[in-house]
Amino acid sequence: MEAVDQIINAKWIITGDENNPILEDHALVIHNGKIKDILPINKISENYNSDSIQNFSSHAFLPGFINAHTHLSMNYFRGLADDLALMDWLNNHIWPAERKWVSEEFVSDASQFAMAEMIRSGTTCFNDMYFFLSATADAADKAGIRGCIGMTVIDFPTAWAKDPDDYIAKGLEFFQAYKNHPRITPTFAPHAPYTVADSTLLKIKELAQTHHLKINMHIHETADEIHQALAATQMRPLKRLQKLGLISPQLIAIHMTQINDEDLQILEAERPQIVHCPESNMKLASGVCPVEKFKTLKLNVALGTDGAASNNDLDMLGEMRSAAFLAKLSTHDSTSLSALEAINMATMNGAKALGLDNTIGSLSMNKSADFIAIHLDEIETLPLYHPVSQIVYAASRQQVTDVWVAGKQLMKNRELLTLDEKELITKAKSWQKKLSNLA
Amino acid sequence: MEAVDQIINAKWIITGDENNPILEDHALVIHNGKIKDILPINKISENYNSDSIQNFSSHAFLPGFINAHTHLSMNYFRGLADDLALMDWLNNHIWPAERKWVSEEFVSDASQFAMAEMIRSGTTCFNDMYFFLSATADAADKAGIRGCIGMTVIDFPTAWAKDPDDYIAKGLEFFQAYKNHPRITPTFAPHAPYTVADSTLLKIKELAQTHHLKINMHIHETADEIHQALAATQMRPLKRLQKLGLISPQLIAIHMTQINDEDLQILEAERPQIVHCPESNMKLASGVCPVEKFKTLKLNVALGTDGAASNNDLDMLGEMRSAAFLAKLSTHDSTSLSALEAINMATMNGAKALGLDNTIGSLSMNKSADFIAIHLDEIETLPLYHPVSQIVYAASRQQVTDVWVAGKQLMKNRELLTLDEKELITKAKSWQKKLSNLA
Repeated sequence: MEAVDQIINAKWIITGDENNPILEDHALVIHNGKIKDILPINKISENYNSDSIQNFSSHAFLPGFINAHTHLSMNYFRGLADDLALMDWLNNHIWPAERKWVSEEFVSDASQFAMAEMIRSGTTCFNDMYFFLSATADAADKAGIRGCIGMTVIDFPTAWAKDPDDYIAKGLEFFQAYKNHPRITPTFAPHAPYTVADSTLLKIKELAQTHHLKINMHIHETADEIHQALAATQMRPLKRLQKLGLISPQLIAIHMTQINDEDLQILEAERPQIVHCPESNMKLASGVCPVEKFKTLKLNVALGTDGAASNNDLDMLGEMRSAAFLAKLSTHDSTSLSALEAINMATMNGAKALGLDNTIGSLSMNKSADFIAIHLDEIETLPLYHPVSQIVYAASRQQVTDVWVAGKQLMKNRELLTLDEKELITKAKSWQKKLSNLA
Repeated sequence: MEAVDQIINAKWIITGDENNPILEDHALVIHNGKIKDILPINKISENYNSDSIQNFSSHAFLPGFINAHTHLSMNYFRGLADDLALMDWLNNHIWPAERKWVSEEFVSDASQFAMAEMIRSGTTCFNDMYFFLSATADAADKAGIRGCIGMTVIDFPTAWAKDPDDYIAKGLEFFQAYKNHPRITPTFAPHAPYTVADSTLLKIKELAQTHHLKINMHIHETADEIHQALAATQMRPLKRLQKLGLISPQLIAIHMTQINDEDLQILEAERPQIVHCPESNMKLASGVCPVEKFKTLKLNVALGTDGAASNNDLDMLGEMRSAAFLAKLSTHDSTSLSALEAINMATMNGAKALGLDNTIGSLSMNKSADFIAIHLDEIETLPLYHPVSQIVYAASRQQVTDVWVAGKQLMKNRELLTLDEKELITKAKSWQKKLSNLA
């Protein structure tokens, strides 16, 4: 009989473990921030006791969602400019707003606000790309959430840095400060093939190898990107990146909606991580990431929301559903991307993409205790024949009731424990007033 | 100074009126179940008083959503069988379940359950097609919701009727009993071109003309339907229906994902109502209803969820978002189907399709007081630059707080006033036990 930190009795556990994906009436045993054991509830009392025992008799437990592509601070631009053509949206709305308002304070406030939205919808780990990195990292530290933070590099000046060398220098300074943080993982994030020159990409490749860092990049997001690259370089962007030696399992290739047979050969040979952002790709009319083709090549495909200016939320439950719908529609096959595959995409595949699959992504012994509870005993998710179907096709984010990261509870019965919801709303409204003249 | 039943002070009113779509700080004046006036809040006290004044300082008010295609009783089959090929799903799961379980009692319980889900997500009017019509009508009568109820006709026997004449006889009996109900409108509902013979369709056409009834039909839902029709009749289904004289503004053509130029000519000439069901069409891999092409022809396109077995919810907020995403994706144009157009599709266009646009569909003087409140002062819908954007692209169904139909409040601050939520959940679980052996 062993004393442990927490025992959580669950109606269902969706483990993320291929051999044993769905357990009924099992308990999670949590100790020192890790999953110490998973066993039938009726075996608990023979093995463990705890001062903290919680019962969830009508909830499903899952690994926390991993949002593999975010621009958290763009939450403050949510709904600023919708239903516009991409370049109108960027040139006349998003970029002017960023030039005028993005600052350390903006990023700190907006990131915390986005973290509240993520925790409230069951996301326990994000993969961000933005500016003023330590403001986001400090917000994550305070919120208790886990995150990868991209050291953005881009050829033109922003409020954050003046040129590629300045971006890299600021990124490395951030890397040195946060590299040992238990929940924060720095990555490199050259923005896109069309905004970062070859020489800079080569520098980033070398630094990423030296420091064992993942490289995030928006790649093949739109047809225009391909046309412009062909006109400028006579190569598709993936080909150019391959020639530079940038495509490898260390690369996280985001969007990837424009994929021809030549691209597929490169991907099959070099095996980068892929992040699918179905809702952003639909809303901006970018195209469809061919996840079923990637599945055939056994490539790892994770799931991301993109920023809230082009989605307009950070809701991974909705994103899984959209991913399943879009896969079925685009392959003309209703068996494409099943509910369980969608959950894996939002959990284990995200962990693999970020190189964190030894720590998170499934509810397995000795992994970090990052998990969520979804209440299924509601009008919208009854009758309940298969919990996985109800989670992907019927549940909504407000049914996420409780969230833990590294064993620490961040939300309890819809109440945020590490962030002050009222204060976040007040701050968001104050920024709204400032930004309204751009809307 | 006039005494009225209710005064409702709203932060925003999305009226559905083309000339004045969004009002800020206005009040709805309700009397005898109708909208008597809409005026600025600061003018109320000069004109009206009431014993019932409610203030909604951070809510948007909209006409209640009109779900233009439902099979309400299929809510009890939600999640029974997902991610399957269409014919496997129908032949091995849905039809066996229907044969075994559909009854007066099943329809009564399942319809009430679906109505609870609809009211909880802001739907005030539905357009149903199923069996045991009076069970659904009685449920609607009790729930206080508005609905059109389709007199289903299909060539094969079901638990409801044994042959086409029997379906028609039972339908007409229903029509006579409910034709004067203030909130229930009977329609004809021959199931689909491939399940109803020409002779039956001609009978239905004549009866519909005699009794001034709309005719609902699933049309051009899948590519298979077209192939089989061409093989059997050497005509596409729309052509056959045109020859039979069935296509007119009285026809409500549901799905319509397979549309070529010949079809467009028929539609332009005959001008039926169209119902778009984006999520069902995606989930079943049926195809894309070309709403932007229909817009060019100025055809009326309404929005529906289809049944919860192929969606898997009755959430019109989610459906609007999916409709906007799908339009943008399929036209490669991010300006397609704006947020306001999506709201109109879910409100006024639905009213037009059902022939109820003199009564419902917009918040206009003398129309029925069918409207809803959505709370926007939440993490997920802030900052708030444009309420319409937040409603379509960021809000979720749980933010619908209050619902009225014909001036009667059906939900108050998320509490159902005409239905017993606990009892509905108990009944759903009891049916779940019976149906589980088919899952």
